Amino acid sequence: MSRTVDVPVLVEEARAGTSRAVGRLISLVDDQHPALPEVMRLLAPHTGRAHVVGITGAPGVGKSTTTNALVRELRARGQRVAVLAVDPSSPFSGGALLGDRIRMTDSAGDPDVWIRSLASRGHLGGLSVSTPQAVRVLDAAGFDTVLVETVGVGQSEVEIAGAADTTLVLLAPGMGDGIQAAKAGILEIGDVFVVNKADREGADATVRDLRHMIQLGEGTALGGWRRRVVRASAMNGEGVDDIAAAVTDHLQHLAASGALRRRRTARARDEITALAIARLRARMGDLGSGGLLERLAEQVVDGGSDPFAAVDELLETLDLSS
Amino acid sequence: MSRTVDVPVLVEEARAGTSRAVGRLISLVDDQHPALPEVMRLLAPHTGRAHVVGITGAPGVGKSTTTNALVRELRARGQRVAVLAVDPSSPFSGGALLGDRIRMTDSAGDPDVWIRSLASRGHLGGLSVSTPQAVRVLDAAGFDTVLVETVGVGQSEVEIAGAADTTLVLLAPGMGDGIQAAKAGILEIGDVFVVNKADREGADATVRDLRHMIQLGEGTALGGWRRRVVRASAMNGEGVDDIAAAVTDHLQHLAASGALRRRRTARARDEITALAIARLRARMGDLGSGGLLERLAEQVVDGGSDPFAAVDELLETLDLSS
Repeated sequence: MSRTVDVPVLVEEARAGTSRAVGRLISLVDDQHPALPEVMRLLAPHTGRAHVVGITGAPGVGKSTTTNALVRELRARGQRVAVLAVDPSSPFSGGALLGDRIRMTDSAGDPDVWIRSLASRGHLGGLSVSTPQAVRVLDAAGFDTVLVETVGVGQSEVEIAGAADTTLVLLAPGMGDGIQAAKAGILEIGDVFVVNKADREGADATVRDLRHMIQLGEGTALGGWRRRVVRASAMNGEGVDDIAAAVTDHLQHLAASGALRRRRTARARDEITALAIARLRARMGDLGSGGLLERLAEQVVDGGSDPFAAVDELLETLDLSS
Repeated sequence: MSRTVDVPVLVEEARAGTSRAVGRLISLVDDQHPALPEVMRLLAPHTGRAHVVGITGAPGVGKSTTTNALVRELRARGQRVAVLAVDPSSPFSGGALLGDRIRMTDSAGDPDVWIRSLASRGHLGGLSVSTPQAVRVLDAAGFDTVLVETVGVGQSEVEIAGAADTTLVLLAPGMGDGIQAAKAGILEIGDVFVVNKADREGADATVRDLRHMIQLGEGTALGGWRRRVVRASAMNGEGVDDIAAAVTDHLQHLAASGALRRRRTARARDEITALAIARLRARMGDLGSGGLLERLAEQVVDGGSDPFAAVDELLETLDLSS
């Protein structure tokens, strides 16, 4: 971690399109390396160009196949494409996503496709801190589209969706029907819905349910965007052009309506908040065992103090400057 | 929320055993009322006597039935017992837990039994802040045992388990077998395991699997406590005395080995940390739309700043004192 890094050189190389340099920068993010503030400072002027697209859905809906097909489609349209596969459920890179990563390597060898999985390494702040930072690296490195793929588990996909300009929600017939989707809260986050495996029985019903539920929700704060439902069979390459078109249309709509800037500002706000909390946690950790925090905790246990008084004392002592 | 509260009188009444006063104090916790720091300050000298027991397990294992039976058993032993039913999955009090609450009222009318559900009302910090505060109220109000019942969903039961002296993990035959339990991470958190519905097929196998997996984990930081597996059929009142005995034995072991104080200090540390983060979030919220945070977020979006620089400026400006 304390290895010296020549950040200006790395940043220049990454911007020039060197895959190795991009990889090193993402590793600095993964490790929450002390050089990260300098990295982000140097990248800042070069960010804001990439279209960030979140892809989420329950296990089994064909997320990695769809991501894979969408990468190919966007490449065919001349784009440089990066994929971040984010696994909030695991402290390690692995499990289902490792499988995904292996499957996805049919784009391996193409210098304009970049694929990497990102896992919470147990560092403070977790993926809510590292995901937007990794996106920033790929954005500054000149990728036109950054696909952020997340496993659909609990609330995490909702959080990660907050990191995207456009959120694609994948469903499959007979798996997550409309009511399931509503319960999971994914109806609210989707800009484009993909009913994948559309050749299967039940696809019509899923599309119908979804359209109905979406209409019920129209008029909510989407800035006039009419959410799309796209039928696809990513495995056979069917409907993938429709997905790409819907995603592109959404970006144009965001840009034209001014919603793009609003969304990105809200995202930056969340990112700053998450970073501030991570710093507070880190500083409190420094005061951990044997230190002030431990002594305050003991006073609370002994009834000589209470948690609010302890927080007052702690925050008075804490230096939160960088 | 801004209604004036005579905190010293409420605290005195709660300590004297008035149910209404206890209820009012818990409502202050639920609302994260501005009078809460004063409440906690006045309660502090009277805390540390109650045995806090966490009860967790997947839906369907018979959590509320077991809690109910355990309440009756502890009452028969002359204890005053409080139950906090915590639902991290819902922003409202309701759903499955509301059902539980209704079922549990067979102790209604007994002044020495106190039952309430606690839900995340969307306030900053959520249940990680309010659960230990509610426990503090019940502790100071003189309940001998406070049972904290949580729905087993994802990581939340692990977090809540951190709020207890003793954690009871419930399983049922054929539902969550040993491997499921291991995957869910509940093997690590249990001090006492209850195989409920032990009259059902598969109970022997579940007990055997569990004992085997527990032995594999022996020697980990439990301070010499040998984790128990208890067979029960809470519905028929069978084995409930064994559960109560195991819970009592565990408390005695904790007290004798010095682990009780260590556990409680770790808990107080977590509580202080959660409160500090909640305060940071609240103060940042005050700087929200139109304010400094918004301006910094816009600078980040425009590439004129980066999230780290924004955090530096934000934390320099922020007054975190009470």
